Amino acid sequence: MRVGLLTGGGDCPGLNAVIRAVSKSLLLRCGAEVIGFEDGFLGLIEGRYRQLDYRAVSGILTRGGTILGTSNKANPFRYFARDGADVSDEVLHRYRDMELDAIVVIGGDGTMTIANGMQKKGMAIVGVPKTIDNDIVGTDRTFGFDTAVTVATEAIDRLHSTAQSHHRVMILETMGRYAGWIALHAGMASGSDVILLPEFPYDIDVVAEVCRKRGQGGQRFTIVAIAEGAKPEGGELAVKKVVVGSPDPIRLGGAGNVLAHALEQRLEGEVRTTILGHVQRGGTPTPFDRVLSTHFGSQAACVVEEGRSGVMVALHDGRMTEIPLTDVAGKVRNVKPNDPHVRAALSVGTSFGVREL
Amino acid sequence: MRVGLLTGGGDCPGLNAVIRAVSKSLLLRCGAEVIGFEDGFLGLIEGRYRQLDYRAVSGILTRGGTILGTSNKANPFRYFARDGADVSDEVLHRYRDMELDAIVVIGGDGTMTIANGMQKKGMAIVGVPKTIDNDIVGTDRTFGFDTAVTVATEAIDRLHSTAQSHHRVMILETMGRYAGWIALHAGMASGSDVILLPEFPYDIDVVAEVCRKRGQGGQRFTIVAIAEGAKPEGGELAVKKVVVGSPDPIRLGGAGNVLAHALEQRLEGEVRTTILGHVQRGGTPTPFDRVLSTHFGSQAACVVEEGRSGVMVALHDGRMTEIPLTDVAGKVRNVKPNDPHVRAALSVGTSFGVREL
Amino acid sequence: MRVGLLTGGGDCPGLNAVIRAVSKSLLLRCGAEVIGFEDGFLGLIEGRYRQLDYRAVSGILTRGGTILGTSNKANPFRYFARDGADVSDEVLHRYRDMELDAIVVIGGDGTMTIANGMQKKGMAIVGVPKTIDNDIVGTDRTFGFDTAVTVATEAIDRLHSTAQSHHRVMILETMGRYAGWIALHAGMASGSDVILLPEFPYDIDVVAEVCRKRGQGGQRFTIVAIAEGAKPEGGELAVKKVVVGSPDPIRLGGAGNVLAHALEQRLEGEVRTTILGHVQRGGTPTPFDRVLSTHFGSQAACVVEEGRSGVMVALHDGRMTEIPLTDVAGKVRNVKPNDPHVRAALSVGTSFGVREL
Amino acid sequence: MRVGLLTGGGDCPGLNAVIRAVSKSLLLRCGAEVIGFEDGFLGLIEGRYRQLDYRAVSGILTRGGTILGTSNKANPFRYFARDGADVSDEVLHRYRDMELDAIVVIGGDGTMTIANGMQKKGMAIVGVPKTIDNDIVGTDRTFGFDTAVTVATEAIDRLHSTAQSHHRVMILETMGRYAGWIALHAGMASGSDVILLPEFPYDIDVVAEVCRKRGQGGQRFTIVAIAEGAKPEGGELAVKKVVVGSPDPIRLGGAGNVLAHALEQRLEGEVRTTILGHVQRGGTPTPFDRVLSTHFGSQAACVVEEGRSGVMVALHDGRMTEIPLTDVAGKVRNVKPNDPHVRAALSVGTSFGVREL
Repeated sequence: MRVGLLTGGGDCPGLNAVIRAVSKSLLLRCGAEVIGFEDGFLGLIEGRYRQLDYRAVSGILTRGGTILGTSNKANPFRYFARDGADVSDEVLHRYRDMELDAIVVIGGDGTMTIANGMQKKGMAIVGVPKTIDNDIVGTDRTFGFDTAVTVATEAIDRLHSTAQSHHRVMILETMGRYAGWIALHAGMASGSDVILLPEFPYDIDVVAEVCRKRGQGGQRFTIVAIAEGAKPEGGELAVKKVVVGSPDPIRLGGAGNVLAHALEQRLEGEVRTTILGHVQRGGTPTPFDRVLSTHFGSQAACVVEEGRSGVMVALHDGRMTEIPLTDVAGKVRNVKPNDPHVRAALSVGTSFGVREL
Repeated sequence: MRVGLLTGGGDCPGLNAVIRAVSKSLLLRCGAEVIGFEDGFLGLIEGRYRQLDYRAVSGILTRGGTILGTSNKANPFRYFARDGADVSDEVLHRYRDMELDAIVVIGGDGTMTIANGMQKKGMAIVGVPKTIDNDIVGTDRTFGFDTAVTVATEAIDRLHSTAQSHHRVMILETMGRYAGWIALHAGMASGSDVILLPEFPYDIDVVAEVCRKRGQGGQRFTIVAIAEGAKPEGGELAVKKVVVGSPDPIRLGGAGNVLAHALEQRLEGEVRTTILGHVQRGGTPTPFDRVLSTHFGSQAACVVEEGRSGVMVALHDGRMTEIPLTDVAGKVRNVKPNDPHVRAALSVGTSFGVREL
Repeated sequence: MRVGLLTGGGDCPGLNAVIRAVSKSLLLRCGAEVIGFEDGFLGLIEGRYRQLDYRAVSGILTRGGTILGTSNKANPFRYFARDGADVSDEVLHRYRDMELDAIVVIGGDGTMTIANGMQKKGMAIVGVPKTIDNDIVGTDRTFGFDTAVTVATEAIDRLHSTAQSHHRVMILETMGRYAGWIALHAGMASGSDVILLPEFPYDIDVVAEVCRKRGQGGQRFTIVAIAEGAKPEGGELAVKKVVVGSPDPIRLGGAGNVLAHALEQRLEGEVRTTILGHVQRGGTPTPFDRVLSTHFGSQAACVVEEGRSGVMVALHDGRMTEIPLTDVAGKVRNVKPNDPHVRAALSVGTSFGVREL
Repeated sequence: MRVGLLTGGGDCPGLNAVIRAVSKSLLLRCGAEVIGFEDGFLGLIEGRYRQLDYRAVSGILTRGGTILGTSNKANPFRYFARDGADVSDEVLHRYRDMELDAIVVIGGDGTMTIANGMQKKGMAIVGVPKTIDNDIVGTDRTFGFDTAVTVATEAIDRLHSTAQSHHRVMILETMGRYAGWIALHAGMASGSDVILLPEFPYDIDVVAEVCRKRGQGGQRFTIVAIAEGAKPEGGELAVKKVVVGSPDPIRLGGAGNVLAHALEQRLEGEVRTTILGHVQRGGTPTPFDRVLSTHFGSQAACVVEEGRSGVMVALHDGRMTEIPLTDVAGKVRNVKPNDPHVRAALSVGTSFGVREL
């Protein structure tokens, strides 16, 4: 048996742990030969790959990044290096020439959409969901998410003492363009007073009111966790209004800065924003993510071994399962108002910046 | 509405997070008065308590320990300070005199057994499962466990480099007297080569063979994660044999030391043991545990508010639920051979120190 | 003996550790009464203070922030709440009315300048140097610096894996407006390839060359640590040129973004910036900073006890000493080309973005 | 120029950082060829070595352990594999055959003694001091020490919450057989109430009195940091008395356990001990240690380049310097009663377990 393996899309803690689990499982359970393609689908297009034997995947469990490299723009259906030409037939030929029995594709929504396309053309693909945003449909959790939440929470823990000492509003902008899971979890874990998500457009006056009321109650500081995709009610138009009104528009732009500026117009004290950025997606995975990655990788190997394909492995109700790639591609799993985390956060008095939820 | 609250048994990261969630939820949702009893059931017996208002539980989410204090030996049915007398009737009177509507009891197996007894006498009790060992029946996870696993994993990560540099066998003994969940998860998360649990009595020759084979394969070090309750096949007798044979029996005793001594008799190189002990149960909880604690506390408040009692809140398939206290008391949730974690660990080549599982 | 205590200026890890050491030392060694003023000089102006007894300062050693609060804009010589009026005489009266023997002032350059002014008016002041930037003259180290370096280094460690996986240039902007000590140390500690400081205006072509050469040598990524005050040769003018050329000027502004934009114009691959901001100045201090803070506080108490004033305690060649406040006020300790750290960084191949140093 | 490099003795965080700095400095500054010997002097004896080029030492700065391996028992003057024969002449021949200009030896007291012997026989040796214990004479600091202190302090931070919740005495045993620097610094950094060092034999009644007094003052817990080499007044005899009196002598032995047992005989509450062990010497070094290691390595390369030998590089008053190997061998730098750290700790009320110091 000969099996390919690649990692696509943005960096995510746990990638190497999945690579290790897929490879070791295939090597040990069915003596398969495992081929790692470099830089995502790019390696498959350009024929760059190497053997992954036991030694190659030893000691990588705890390392951030991916030993295979990755790429954001490698799409066989629109190859950027040839003016967007469709090279998927060439890729299929390479797959057949190399006598691969299957390819394990570790990636996010974009990668799964490509994987689905290649499966339809005749490749046997097993997907492993990857995103620090935790917003892939069909799986309760994605690896890398716990690490991102941990990094964001530790940052808010640090901001907390400054907020208290200076009697300030402190804002932390987390990743999460379409879904607010990181901000939701990090906000809960850090005891943030306000959590703002892309799913619930916020009312700036509600947020200002929370800050003011806390001051009246004797707590002269407020902590806000905001996802990068969170917007005020009124969307882009409302953002533009805030930005244009700024004396220093050059400093604005991100969700956190927009909010900071809008709050400073409504409050007396100082408002400060921190944007964590890529720090959330690099570095060693948390133990939780290492265990989860091992499960995903081990399950993907099992699916390959049993000859199934066209599916993505998934975590559902604490058990490993799989769902068709076609059910995953092009969708986002959003935070809903009745999500248990939202209800628990509301229960302890957290505001989501809206009148009602 | 007036609700009591106490924490019993050993320290556990997340206790304060639960106290905060229970209190804030009750204060905000139904304007209840919340009374915190000091040092577990001891405060209920001796009448030591204080009001938990919003300010009292602010800022405690991230702190280790319990602001209420706890006790290992406070049992109303056998009060140690009065020669083991049954003072449960007095406790019941105090409960009624104080006009409490319910008591939220945060504790482990022992505490739940007492809680069950007091419920039967007429108190309205809502339990919250607490143990770093993750071995309470009826709930998929307990808070504190993720933190304990994280501390243990970080320790093994550190031992890894020493093992590699010195070509040694390094053993880490984790907590877990009856159930091996911490060693299992920390072992997986750290890529330990051998994981030894109380549930699977190990064959010392199998363990020695793993070390030897790794050496032959060019990896001149081995990492072993062992739970404090793990024993060799043959149990106490086998342990005694090892200890008696030791030139320095005074240094032996714990599971890790027994193993180290037995391995040194069978291998050439050095074997070193680290016993983490209480470091695993103190300090700030991980973000995962803070979120989970908030769920447990918020759910307990909800159960109290709805007038139910005699139950323990629980996590099942990713959702909060509750189960009767009588189903919990006196039982332990063990690691089974077909547990998905065990299967995943086996899949990547981890040994459990047995010929077959 | 009655001694006042206040913390001024920005938040800094170790403030509470100094408060604890000053207070405990004075309480234990000479039974002094210690009075903590709230929010820096503001508390002295407005008469807001409280007693600091043994209990008040217990358990604060490890906590970030300052239990006394601080303020950036409290200046007795120009009181903002009274249109910038000079209220220093009133402050002096309060000091005498309260029968204070001395005031320990923990603060940075701005605070020391005020302290120096009040000393000249007749108050007995002992200063303790505070800044995460490590740029106060007369002391080899300031507390808080090691913590800031640690936070920045951990961030770069995380970015490293992403840079490697994506073959990118990753930039981390650290604090340091006038002096580049944080970027210098964090850059060295993380093995950054390029370190850019306010002291050495950089040549953008030199930086681009480093990135290109690394790519040719097979290492397709580059890590840059840049202080917020670092500027290209040509200063503001050069910055404006970069910003104006940008299609999205709104995203630009900080040192890291300016550099990223300039590099993207010169290189093929992607460039990403992370701005850590206030995360560097909050949270629990490192053990190093806790020990150093204890030294500073203990020494300040000793100086007070011995009746000296008008001085700032300082660390020089590993020993506690003191220097006149007049020698400190209004000066900055900069990184010099022949600093041993600069020479060691050059020695291992680090670039400072200049042709020669 | 051809230069050898080896690491001897116990694992220590920062070893790889020194290897990197020595190698990069020599490669870049004088185009030297760098040869790394495996497993300390063993590689020199047995002829096991490899080339250290730029690529070989890239990316190792942050890694624990040593890529060269180390050995505790490799002594050319008493080679264990040949019944303790003196093979130093053979080693000298190999050194000359390989046309080495110098060897950089990174190690502790034992390694420096061997290095001194080889220097006298005609090898050109430059030493780099290595020990987590910080007890090498002639240097103010050794790399690895800050990391060990950080690990120990984080452990005590975690124990703190348990001590408080359970009203217990908690003991942490740190490394430090002959010198107590780790316990001293970690004790100060964690606010331990009692610090016990090998240098100051403790009076058990003084320790018990501290615990009792704290209880009377309302603080019902005590934290003790004890070095593994700390002993009660009366030494081994006093230890034996304690151990023999124990109902479970098998659990005793280490300094922490002896103290715990002695305290339990004198106090009412519970006493718990944690022994950190090897966790203190592995894993990624702190940023402080990475910077210090870079200084040491860069300085060693400089000394080699300038043709000096028979010296150990050292840190003195914040500057790199060097001292003769003969001044180092066989000595230990101990904690003295008038050490500034001891005075500062006393100043804030810490007890060293003695009546007077």
